[in-house]
Amino acid sequence: MEALGLHVLMEFHKCPFEILNNLKALELTMNDAAKASKATIIKSVFHQFSPQGVTGVIVVAESHIAIHTWPEHGYAAVDFFTCNMDMDYKKAYYLLVHNLKSKVYTYRSIKRGNLQYKDVGYELSKN
Amino acid sequence: MEALGLHVLMEFHKCPFEILNNLKALELTMNDAAKASKATIIKSVFHQFSPQGVTGVIVVAESHIAIHTWPEHGYAAVDFFTCNMDMDYKKAYYLLVHNLKSKVYTYRSIKRGNLQYKDVGYELSKN
Repeated sequence: MEALGLHVLMEFHKCPFEILNNLKALELTMNDAAKASKATIIKSVFHQFSPQGVTGVIVVAESHIAIHTWPEHGYAAVDFFTCNMDMDYKKAYYLLVHNLKSKVYTYRSIKRGNLQYKDVGYELSKN
Repeated sequence: MEALGLHVLMEFHKCPFEILNNLKALELTMNDAAKASKATIIKSVFHQFSPQGVTGVIVVAESHIAIHTWPEHGYAAVDFFTCNMDMDYKKAYYLLVHNLKSKVYTYRSIKRGNLQYKDVGYELSKN
């Protein structure tokens, strides 16, 4: 299958509340993860929610890297979207497992922009 | 299944080159899509690539909305990540179909943060 992008959805459970609610530490960790994967950082935007939770997005030359945390559930969702199939997202993944101190973690990767659809010429889905 | 977030991955094929390479129009369309879905916009970051292509991320109170375009392939990838299951992403989807003038489009939605995993207590995936 010829695809233009790879979207890696990572799930980190059983992380300490304090880590998932610390904007500055999360921004540093996510930037380190971006660098570990050899992504080229363009801009980093992080936001602290009240009473808890952090959202952060790093726009990279290869697409984007995002994190959303639910400290009250010990859960963080991370996604890596890249147009560079050689980007080393596994290095970023294990760096995140370590820094988020996650005890239960997983990921799945989804190909985006499957060019076999481009000539289908009708709507693939309406609902 | 109890999930904390919903991640909707949208694919838009057969879009005109000019539309997918127009940063200002795409930023307007994506902000309109965010409003149509009733998301609360926090920050919008868009970037033009050379020789073509646009990446844009809107950080919203409900998580994030992102677009990456490949004008040379007539393709745009959009994702809506929301922690509000009532967010009306379908309104945003049809607004995007219309504004991007896509002739072949589809989406899939993926639940994120499945709390049934939180007590598994072991690593779910290593590869």
